[in-house]
Amino acid sequence: MSTPTIRPPVAISLARSRRTVIRLHPDDNVVVACYDLTAGDRLDSESLTTIDPIPSGHKVATRAISAGSSVIRYGQFIGLARTDIAPGAHVHTHNLDYVEVDHAAQFGVDARPTQFVEKPATFLGIRRADGRVATRNFIGLVSSVNCSATVVRAIADYFRRDLNPAALADFPNVDGVVPLTHGNGCAVDPNGLGLQVLQRTLRGYAQHVNFAGVIVIGLGCETNQVEDLVEVDLSGLDRPVASFNTQDVGGTRQAVARGIELVKSMLPQANDVYREEVPASELIVGLQCGGSDGYSGITANPALGAAVDRLVRNGGTAILSETPEIYGAEHLLARRASSPEVGQKLLDRMAWWLDYAECMGAELNNNPSAGNKKGGLTTVLEKSLGGVAKGGTTALMEVYEYAQAVTTRGFVFMDTPGFDPVSATGQVAGGANLIAFTTGRGSAYGCQPTPSLKLSTNNELWLRQSEDIDINCGEIVNGYATVDELGEQIFQRMLTCASGESSKSELFGYGQNEFVPWQLSAVM
Amino acid sequence: MSTPTIRPPVAISLARSRRTVIRLHPDDNVVVACYDLTAGDRLDSESLTTIDPIPSGHKVATRAISAGSSVIRYGQFIGLARTDIAPGAHVHTHNLDYVEVDHAAQFGVDARPTQFVEKPATFLGIRRADGRVATRNFIGLVSSVNCSATVVRAIADYFRRDLNPAALADFPNVDGVVPLTHGNGCAVDPNGLGLQVLQRTLRGYAQHVNFAGVIVIGLGCETNQVEDLVEVDLSGLDRPVASFNTQDVGGTRQAVARGIELVKSMLPQANDVYREEVPASELIVGLQCGGSDGYSGITANPALGAAVDRLVRNGGTAILSETPEIYGAEHLLARRASSPEVGQKLLDRMAWWLDYAECMGAELNNNPSAGNKKGGLTTVLEKSLGGVAKGGTTALMEVYEYAQAVTTRGFVFMDTPGFDPVSATGQVAGGANLIAFTTGRGSAYGCQPTPSLKLSTNNELWLRQSEDIDINCGEIVNGYATVDELGEQIFQRMLTCASGESSKSELFGYGQNEFVPWQLSAVM
Ligand SMILES: [Ca+2]
Ligand SMILES: [Ca+2]
Ligand SMILES: [Ca+2]
Ligand SMILES: [Ca+2]
Ligand SMILES: [Ca+2]
Repeated sequence: MSTPTIRPPVAISLARSRRTVIRLHPDDNVVVACYDLTAGDRLDSESLTTIDPIPSGHKVATRAISAGSSVIRYGQFIGLARTDIAPGAHVHTHNLDYVEVDHAAQFGVDARPTQFVEKPATFLGIRRADGRVATRNFIGLVSSVNCSATVVRAIADYFRRDLNPAALADFPNVDGVVPLTHGNGCAVDPNGLGLQVLQRTLRGYAQHVNFAGVIVIGLGCETNQVEDLVEVDLSGLDRPVASFNTQDVGGTRQAVARGIELVKSMLPQANDVYREEVPASELIVGLQCGGSDGYSGITANPALGAAVDRLVRNGGTAILSETPEIYGAEHLLARRASSPEVGQKLLDRMAWWLDYAECMGAELNNNPSAGNKKGGLTTVLEKSLGGVAKGGTTALMEVYEYAQAVTTRGFVFMDTPGFDPVSATGQVAGGANLIAFTTGRGSAYGCQPTPSLKLSTNNELWLRQSEDIDINCGEIVNGYATVDELGEQIFQRMLTCASGESSKSELFGYGQNEFVPWQLSAVM
Repeated sequence: MSTPTIRPPVAISLARSRRTVIRLHPDDNVVVACYDLTAGDRLDSESLTTIDPIPSGHKVATRAISAGSSVIRYGQFIGLARTDIAPGAHVHTHNLDYVEVDHAAQFGVDARPTQFVEKPATFLGIRRADGRVATRNFIGLVSSVNCSATVVRAIADYFRRDLNPAALADFPNVDGVVPLTHGNGCAVDPNGLGLQVLQRTLRGYAQHVNFAGVIVIGLGCETNQVEDLVEVDLSGLDRPVASFNTQDVGGTRQAVARGIELVKSMLPQANDVYREEVPASELIVGLQCGGSDGYSGITANPALGAAVDRLVRNGGTAILSETPEIYGAEHLLARRASSPEVGQKLLDRMAWWLDYAECMGAELNNNPSAGNKKGGLTTVLEKSLGGVAKGGTTALMEVYEYAQAVTTRGFVFMDTPGFDPVSATGQVAGGANLIAFTTGRGSAYGCQPTPSLKLSTNNELWLRQSEDIDINCGEIVNGYATVDELGEQIFQRMLTCASGESSKSELFGYGQNEFVPWQLSAVM
């Protein structure tokens, strides 16, 4: 989430609400009040009567929860009952604790075997020669260093349909040419982690299934040499890969001309693709939230989680990320790990962040604020789980470092910062062929070569900024849709978007400025 | 210098050389061999005969230097003679030492009072209402966060003369609209140094004299709030300043339309400017080198230094930077400090870099390599002085932090990384209205709103890539020009460029991708 603090969901009370409480998952033994409830209020959807006043956004027990047993929200453990809790009672800091336990011993205790669907859903994808499936069909221009950014963008501009429609007129199956420019690539430790991460990111893009051809373009004298990027990693690709340095071809004018000619030479083959029915298991969806608000954790995030559960049951892959934002909930995620090794990897990444933040003089702190608690969030777990809710409830199959190739199917984690463009850049480098992005404040994020669906957490945003948003999840609050219904709607929209239907951000041409590799190195 | 190592100047021997040695400064008691000399070779330009073999790139004593006295290169102390050195003798590791001394006691010992010219040179500048003088006349679009980059670029694209010539057709005095986009602005410590430096950089651009109008554009929910940038710092400017957030105007489409209308509203006033004769003292020149080679320290850098000495004697300002690349020579620069405080500030910045590098697991190390020594560089001072040579020989008047407003005239230092776009971004934020950039390998750097002159260190580069380079300094090696002659040529070209004559990089439209604020914060 791009905002430093999550607003309490004080605005949940909507006059026209058709519902009193929101159920976030069928397994939950608490539900969330849509507005201020009094003792004795009837909750028809839960066949239950409240026995305490329940403030808007706070939790009501739906079943008897005995002292010492688990409280479940988002289908997941959020703490232990301190006392016996009766159905209809208020559940908050007075009767709910997070008890420190032996975390390692709990690896995998919540990992349930995936219930795969019998007949998987399908979409219309582009199957490449190596068997991977693309959702879009671009040509990529990878810059090794900021010093080749202007050349790269001049080449890409030549092929922009809005500026020079003739250039791609004969190639309707080519979605465009993506300039992957950035501010790094030189004056860094040649043996340091920062350059490794940058190179892994650039290689991930160069190998991305949504590219039908790739050109790697450098200046020539940079630390991050084009030769290192191309020769080792791209030589085995099933696509045209070209590369050159501006200094080797005689300067800017020649470099731009060379790049345009190379793209032209790739267009006939790039255009020679067709979409065919492929199983949903070919989807790799990067999960994001940016500009969160008090609704994120009860509308769009759990709805996306419900879609992810469907995706995983169809054999697909979803990547949760944004490590600093799950601080406090990493142990809960580790309870879903498919093996102790996977659980430990997640904890190791969080330990790395703690060290890194200390070294950088920053803080990892996701504790609920006074406002959060007033809004109904009891523990740091619950707050972080508002973000984790995007990942649904299935077992955590693998943990990846930033921009590592995602090869395990199912629900996985990739360590990234929380900042949206940096996080999504890592996921796309890892192979994501779709992004699903929740927003409460109104992010206008978009991506290339991977399309990005945006989900609003509240109706006000949808009314204000629907040209930038694909699906409204605000209807959950006033009872016109359930989390599960929106989960199904989102899953279906994933399939149509993957099949070629444009997301809103694609209509505006987003994605030419949102390639932002994680910068870890000191710039010297 | 963008390259991690400096190549030894092994290729100095050119068949057609008219000269045997290069004199880098009139005060020097050593000169540099243009090719391998034998004992007994006559050096006409120095009225001297060698008494040792002198390898290409190595130093020859031109006067008797007694043991314990100073060896002078670039007009500056580079060490003490270990033995008596006779005229014509080879000066290298066998008879030249850098002796550690009490650095603080030496603050200012080399600070000579500036000999101002009687009749300062002039150029044709645009004088703003506040008295400052512009060299170009742009409208600037400052993005607070990556999340507004696509909106900012769409607005700028609308006004690009190569894409939409009608948009600025009625405004010939407006040089264009600059999109200042970047990959930062959110998910950072709101109280940290990183955000402070980013905000200082953005404010520096928003206040830059070369902008006739500025629009600050955000998304809305970012850490780096547009309001903070605008209200405090820009309200007193003598120009139109507007700002808005995409989230506040209804989304992407409305934000782009709003931005285009705002630019249009600023164009008549922006176009209402004229150039008038102003003194060279109004020039603030950022000094850069990128893609250095073995010639940098004996051709383009000292030639630029000779131009800077002229600029300073005319009352102008030159900013030396790239702190990591002067490591080892900071004490020499401090000998030129105008006061002990200024000298101490420089040493403090270097101490900061040592701490920072250690924390980041990187290394500050500019020691001459074996290849450097073979090429004739004796000490770390001499190597770092190859970069410092760009700054000429006048007193160091002030030391600035990154992107701080440069208000002291004369030769000053600004602490920046060595990476060209990051370093130049800091200088422009500080007010540089001209950049002078030396390159041996063939950088294609360009900047907006500040024009950048590029100087080649060798003839081969000039022959290969002259479309990207403004002035060739390679002629110094084969004797067709002296350092001093090229210094005069560069100074005159500074004046014509400042007067509106395009630099090479401007002809290619460089500068729309080279705004790269120094990223110091951890991205969370
Ligand atoms: Ca987030
Ligand atoms: Ca985020
Ligand atoms: Ca970029
Ligand atoms: Ca340099
Ligand atoms: Ca540099």
